[in-house]
Amino acid sequence: MKAQLGTDEGKHKFVLKTPKGTRDFGPKEMAIRERAFKAIISCFKRHGAEVIDTPVFELKETLTGKYGEDSKLIYDLKDQGGELLSLRYDLTVPFARYLAMNKITNIKRYHIAKVYRRDNPAMTRGRYREFYQCDFDIAGQFDPMIPDAECLKIVHEILSDLQLGDFVIKVNDRRILDGMFAVCGVPDSKFRTICSSVDKLDKVPWEEVRSEMVGEKGLSPEAADRIGEYVQLHGGLDLIEQLLQDPKLSQNKVAKEGLGDMKLLFEYLTLFGITGKISFDLSLARGLDYYTGVIFEAVLLQQENEHVEEPLSVGSVAGGGRYDGLVGMFDAKGRKVPCVGVSIGIERIFSILEQRLEASEEKVRTTETQVLVASAQKKLLEERLKLISELWDAGIKAEMLYRKNPKLLNQLQYCEETGIPLVAIVGEQELKDGVVKLRIVATREEVKLSWTCSDLNLIEAVECFHVMSPLGDF
Amino acid sequence: MKAQLGTDEGKHKFVLKTPKGTRDFGPKEMAIRERAFKAIISCFKRHGAEVIDTPVFELKETLTGKYGEDSKLIYDLKDQGGELLSLRYDLTVPFARYLAMNKITNIKRYHIAKVYRRDNPAMTRGRYREFYQCDFDIAGQFDPMIPDAECLKIVHEILSDLQLGDFVIKVNDRRILDGMFAVCGVPDSKFRTICSSVDKLDKVPWEEVRSEMVGEKGLSPEAADRIGEYVQLHGGLDLIEQLLQDPKLSQNKVAKEGLGDMKLLFEYLTLFGITGKISFDLSLARGLDYYTGVIFEAVLLQQENEHVEEPLSVGSVAGGGRYDGLVGMFDAKGRKVPCVGVSIGIERIFSILEQRLEASEEKVRTTETQVLVASAQKKLLEERLKLISELWDAGIKAEMLYRKNPKLLNQLQYCEETGIPLVAIVGEQELKDGVVKLRIVATREEVKLSWTCSDLNLIEAVECFHVMSPLGDF
Repeated sequence: MKAQLGTDEGKHKFVLKTPKGTRDFGPKEMAIRERAFKAIISCFKRHGAEVIDTPVFELKETLTGKYGEDSKLIYDLKDQGGELLSLRYDLTVPFARYLAMNKITNIKRYHIAKVYRRDNPAMTRGRYREFYQCDFDIAGQFDPMIPDAECLKIVHEILSDLQLGDFVIKVNDRRILDGMFAVCGVPDSKFRTICSSVDKLDKVPWEEVRSEMVGEKGLSPEAADRIGEYVQLHGGLDLIEQLLQDPKLSQNKVAKEGLGDMKLLFEYLTLFGITGKISFDLSLARGLDYYTGVIFEAVLLQQENEHVEEPLSVGSVAGGGRYDGLVGMFDAKGRKVPCVGVSIGIERIFSILEQRLEASEEKVRTTETQVLVASAQKKLLEERLKLISELWDAGIKAEMLYRKNPKLLNQLQYCEETGIPLVAIVGEQELKDGVVKLRIVATREEVKLSWTCSDLNLIEAVECFHVMSPLGDF
Repeated sequence: MKAQLGTDEGKHKFVLKTPKGTRDFGPKEMAIRERAFKAIISCFKRHGAEVIDTPVFELKETLTGKYGEDSKLIYDLKDQGGELLSLRYDLTVPFARYLAMNKITNIKRYHIAKVYRRDNPAMTRGRYREFYQCDFDIAGQFDPMIPDAECLKIVHEILSDLQLGDFVIKVNDRRILDGMFAVCGVPDSKFRTICSSVDKLDKVPWEEVRSEMVGEKGLSPEAADRIGEYVQLHGGLDLIEQLLQDPKLSQNKVAKEGLGDMKLLFEYLTLFGITGKISFDLSLARGLDYYTGVIFEAVLLQQENEHVEEPLSVGSVAGGGRYDGLVGMFDAKGRKVPCVGVSIGIERIFSILEQRLEASEEKVRTTETQVLVASAQKKLLEERLKLISELWDAGIKAEMLYRKNPKLLNQLQYCEETGIPLVAIVGEQELKDGVVKLRIVATREEVKLSWTCSDLNLIEAVECFHVMSPLGDF
């Protein structure tokens, strides 16, 4: 066996690691992850979403032609005979495939699962090749901007709930962008590639983006400069009104539609009371090809005690938009199902929660064990096994040391280390009296409780303690 | 875009499907799946387990040499430059890699995740190429058979809790099998391959297994016949005692060790009160190479209203065993960490729960929405948006139709279809009076409640109704 592994000296050295761009989650990280998931899932459920799941891989052709310039980051499986497969790149394309395949025209669902991108990960900034996405989408033909507004409300609720600090949700519309490109003199055929350039504005300065547009992508300098003026605009209802009066933009049909809907969206967001965190931002473009209407992205604003280079935004934690054409791409007759959705970028959120927890020195419990079954003397293994079995059967979360004759001190230490609040101590004298000692670890208080099959006083006591000091609350 | 997809007539036809051996889970299936997960996770937590997660793929060489004849079923990723990767085949090898990599010598953890096998799936019997495993493992140097007994207790608790019908947990020990092979005259070099043959006994008759041993694997007919006598034995403590007296087996050192531990195991299982469902079965072999001690497998026994070919067992739903050498295979110095664990085969369990639910015609709710915010007249969209926003902010699970002017009848019908128990109706007169009508869908009872920012009487009423008739309880 060892030879097969190649660990013998002189041979190929076996490397003990996870694949590049991935990581394990140990118990402590999982406890943090579950805390974040809990907040996100309860928000999705609060908004009446159902839940679905799809396979981790799709037919390669299902993913083809959906991601624009990012398609090169898709992981393919080896051709081992049979179908050609790729790992999913996001949850949106599998969702569209699911809708088309099952002829579903109306659903509100969430999906939390891992996606895969062969990116060059900057892992310190919380970016990985394998990472979770938490998606909420509304599919169906509805009156304009009502589902879109709900998606933004959801982002607002989740980011507020997780207390990640101050944030802003940038909003734009692909129709406004397209109209803007048109009035700036960008040829139709270059809309998507120029859009990709604009998308980089959150990472690189305008000068660099401009030179990519003109140099690499062959746009005229005049058109680029006109774009440059628009993309520095951001604001609220006032900016929408201003652009509706813009002599060029207001003459463009799609831009006008986009601006009209943006106004409606802001009215609904006002009713939701969340416009304070929303910024209509003409530089927001989003990389993916499939968006057709509203697009948005939430970024966290600088925290006081965080050391980052950027002066203001410290990274996107949620994004999404409307994609009315994607489902139709999977339908033989091209039947469309309008969709709008949001994806929560949970990895960045984990990193922040992890950092904060480390700073706070709060001790994270990684189990929910209520009671340790211990013994005061030797030769009481059988009694411990019998008692713990009864506790388990009564639904009590219980542990014991896997030793025949553990020392009482070691058993008490185990409770201190792992945060188990109660110890049920089996002793010779107590056995004779038909009782068990229940000890509260924190206060060292002890109480004797009867332990017979008919009178499980002990179970009641453990449960009562659990209710009084909720341990699972974390 | 369409051209890229190849959907144009005359061209290659795009196939709308999930990859072979995989499936989507829609909202109804997910509701069932979550029910099963809930039972399993609460059992794992009751036994004090922490939780971990590992990447879906591993370095290819991490999986090499661990699975014996099944290695051919591993999915490899395409070589796109960089490391060679494979999808995980189970959760046990990644767990061992995780322990060795982080030098962990002591942990009790569970891990619930999907694993991948390029098998020829018989999907009607609940077997897939992508499927969930729910693993619970105890790693560490402990006194014999205490953790092993807990694993069996866990299987017993979960199968009882899920009410899947009658079951039996077959138990054996690799050391007993190896001793048996030795005394039957199987050469050392053939132990593992003969073990693989014995493993097929749950699917094919002895005659076929015998001819594989003798024909394909070159075992002497006499040795095969001697094995044939042993593998038909199954029983309890009495059989263990009988074999401890067996003139040949009792002379074999490893067999004797295995039998001694089996006796100890049965003593502990007696204290747990579960020996009624345990069968010491010499035909149980388990396919995987890495087991070194106790092995076990739980099978469901025939249900009355199920149409299956097999007369008795309808398939394995859990399995596991002790693997004391696996972690050492990853350690440069070969340091061992003894482990024992159990894997719950959740897919087969889903199939049974699905069938049962279909038969029962019970209606499964796929959301937890408590209240629909509706309007009695037209032009009340703004008021609905304002009310639902306040409900969400108060933690109430609320929905509304995404229409400007939905008909009241349609809104009530939506509640009937999706099982929403309450409707909060906004009406012109009520708005003037500062109230909202709350209607119980099932009884059509209505009550008027005040709705002002300072006096959110409505929220209390919805929450009170929720407590009185727990909807999330499903």
